[in-house]
Amino acid sequence: MADSGNPRVVIAGAGFGGLSAAKALSRSPVDVIIVDRNNYHTFLPLLYQVAAGELEPGDVAYPVRTILRKMPSARFTMAEVERVDLGGRVVETDGPDIPYDFLILATGTVDYFLRVPGGPEHAFSLKTLEEAIALRNHILGCVERADHEPDAQSRQSLISFAIVGGGPTGVETAGALAELMQGPMAKDCRNLDFDQVRIVLIEATAALLPTLPEPLGVYAEKRLRQMGVEVRLESLVDRITPDLVYLQDGTTIPACTTVWAAGVQGDPQAEASGLPTAHRGRVAVLPTLQAPDHPEVYVIGDLAHFEQDGSPLAMVAQVAMQGGVAAAQNIERQLAGHEPLPFRYRDRGTMATIGRNHAAAYAYGRTFTGFPAWLLWLSIHLFYLIGYRNRLLVMINWARHYFFREHAACRILPSEQVPPARVAQQDAGPGASPDEKKT
Amino acid sequence: MADSGNPRVVIAGAGFGGLSAAKALSRSPVDVIIVDRNNYHTFLPLLYQVAAGELEPGDVAYPVRTILRKMPSARFTMAEVERVDLGGRVVETDGPDIPYDFLILATGTVDYFLRVPGGPEHAFSLKTLEEAIALRNHILGCVERADHEPDAQSRQSLISFAIVGGGPTGVETAGALAELMQGPMAKDCRNLDFDQVRIVLIEATAALLPTLPEPLGVYAEKRLRQMGVEVRLESLVDRITPDLVYLQDGTTIPACTTVWAAGVQGDPQAEASGLPTAHRGRVAVLPTLQAPDHPEVYVIGDLAHFEQDGSPLAMVAQVAMQGGVAAAQNIERQLAGHEPLPFRYRDRGTMATIGRNHAAAYAYGRTFTGFPAWLLWLSIHLFYLIGYRNRLLVMINWARHYFFREHAACRILPSEQVPPARVAQQDAGPGASPDEKKT
Repeated sequence: MADSGNPRVVIAGAGFGGLSAAKALSRSPVDVIIVDRNNYHTFLPLLYQVAAGELEPGDVAYPVRTILRKMPSARFTMAEVERVDLGGRVVETDGPDIPYDFLILATGTVDYFLRVPGGPEHAFSLKTLEEAIALRNHILGCVERADHEPDAQSRQSLISFAIVGGGPTGVETAGALAELMQGPMAKDCRNLDFDQVRIVLIEATAALLPTLPEPLGVYAEKRLRQMGVEVRLESLVDRITPDLVYLQDGTTIPACTTVWAAGVQGDPQAEASGLPTAHRGRVAVLPTLQAPDHPEVYVIGDLAHFEQDGSPLAMVAQVAMQGGVAAAQNIERQLAGHEPLPFRYRDRGTMATIGRNHAAAYAYGRTFTGFPAWLLWLSIHLFYLIGYRNRLLVMINWARHYFFREHAACRILPSEQVPPARVAQQDAGPGASPDEKKT
Repeated sequence: MADSGNPRVVIAGAGFGGLSAAKALSRSPVDVIIVDRNNYHTFLPLLYQVAAGELEPGDVAYPVRTILRKMPSARFTMAEVERVDLGGRVVETDGPDIPYDFLILATGTVDYFLRVPGGPEHAFSLKTLEEAIALRNHILGCVERADHEPDAQSRQSLISFAIVGGGPTGVETAGALAELMQGPMAKDCRNLDFDQVRIVLIEATAALLPTLPEPLGVYAEKRLRQMGVEVRLESLVDRITPDLVYLQDGTTIPACTTVWAAGVQGDPQAEASGLPTAHRGRVAVLPTLQAPDHPEVYVIGDLAHFEQDGSPLAMVAQVAMQGGVAAAQNIERQLAGHEPLPFRYRDRGTMATIGRNHAAAYAYGRTFTGFPAWLLWLSIHLFYLIGYRNRLLVMINWARHYFFREHAACRILPSEQVPPARVAQQDAGPGASPDEKKT
């Protein structure tokens, strides 16, 4: 790694925040090194469509090195960040140690299971491409097994799906799953009765989409019910087993698939490195996005806990991208001998899609629902998808899905496939294997 | 599985042979059950392009159930065939036991390592989509590691690639690998000197493409050498370690990646079920494609050893597809009380592509080389790719690759990625992990 002698900015994480910081720094007299455990950027807002077989993994992942071609001063190192030595100014990874003059920490969040027993072992997450593929393989594997399962009760569990959390991720996943089951699965598995499919969306508060204006949550609930999804509001999960979800009110939901969309915490590596955290491991940043006592360290994106007008900013791509630009500009100011400026987020809207051609959106101070909201959602997502090819392919997949109700991507992907159990065993992680779930 | 009462034909394997048999039976008064361990058909002849990051896994895989939509009498069961009870006429799987009246066995081959020590542990195969993804992740992971490897010798091993076997698979893989390295890799990894990359193709006989007419092998050798590939003819591999290939003449080739393209054997399950085998576990079939003493069992495709005009038929898609049709027609004849007819293969040509726009082809009794052969190769492969969407996407990928020298699919795919070691550990299979290779 021959350096130019310029100050070195290390960016940990190639998500929306990290990449927009790198782009903002591309004409500065600094050397940029981006570190990520994957060699691709993941378009997180569409992961649920990978899980539902609507998109291919490649549609939502784009090689970091290809993105960096346009930024001659930026380089990439594929490695997992293990710890930051704040005193020595070194990022420690499972590969090389990487010294920095400035650090932009943008490693995001991991799931937080709210102390629900069985959550970490038996619920599936949707935070990484890996997890989206594991969930898809599990769902398709359950349907394949249901197809030749003689016992009625076991068969019912195999085609029942619980989703915990009624925020955008939960709402979008429930809608996509309903369409997967009523569309291509019903068409292809002629042995099964798809009227038996149960999709249960469990939300702790009194409304879906609790962080959006109320009419949107009401609309989402109505649409999902029309699509056959059972919506359970004010329901708290007590524990999760491989084939049952226990609610605190005593209800049990037999389901071999439980998706966790109910809570996250900051990447634990930040707290382990000694950074002060606010709520659930997210770093309490200064108004300038700097870490307290470390003017050379910026924290952005989902990992940063940043309060504006009395409430913390949402964990969405827009916040991360604007934070990345602000951090880059503040580093430039510091290099020029100026004080860094406080960050201010400009909200350009939030939205959630509900199935094939409906959405709920809040933008420009207005709420939109139905098809107009869906068009808005579609164009905004396409606009942000990185790379012409990805946009084109995603457009083809969506067009096909839209006109033919056809899921392009219903393959059970190789590596986790024989037996489907391997995924869960392999990363000792989010989801239990179908076989474990049987016992 | 409610049956119509018609005779049941079980087809084991959803490859070219199995699917063409199913299609040929789609209007017969029989119930067809296709069994495969994957829920998708794999377009095997293009696996090497998945390994070289030219195509996405989804481009060469198509869901079996979607293919079967046009065949109302055919059903699919996702299960791994473990054994055939020939006496009881039952296919035993890791899922349900499946009784049959007629069986078409089309489960193909697995790698055969010619008793080369270290082959099964340290060489990568290209027989399944799983293996192609594992190989791609390994190759890209090696380049990522070379990018920050301080030791010159270790770095050299990480960007050296040995390919064992100079048949079509070996030739195509060597060409695709050369283009991957000299194209997108050289463009994206600016720390590395890509003039150092070594790609060594090792062939036991005196010519490449030994099963094709001689001028084609000569042409392939010339083209590959122009592309920087070292071609070693009349070279036998003695043993393979994680980072070295030992040849029998005493030469060693330091390489962290060894691809095995030198030999296969019939799916061992056939021999284990008591079917008589000819050469390397492939079933010695009667001229009618029936198994000796079992007129209700047909064996087709790569698993069948069938001699025509004094030599065994090649293991290519064309032979499998024609065999599938012949087996289906013979079953129809048996049901109608007639004798099955002997099979006769009509050779429509063989070919291998060498890099971006060259190929070597033998068709209509003539040899073709260079760009005309490549056009022929391209159109034949596109013609056979199942499904309009797959054809379109593959065409887009190829066009992009062709015009922009751009590899669309250079992501290190999730499941095997963190750490890359997992693949090898996971299936105790074809390739050693990079970490193991270091020690």
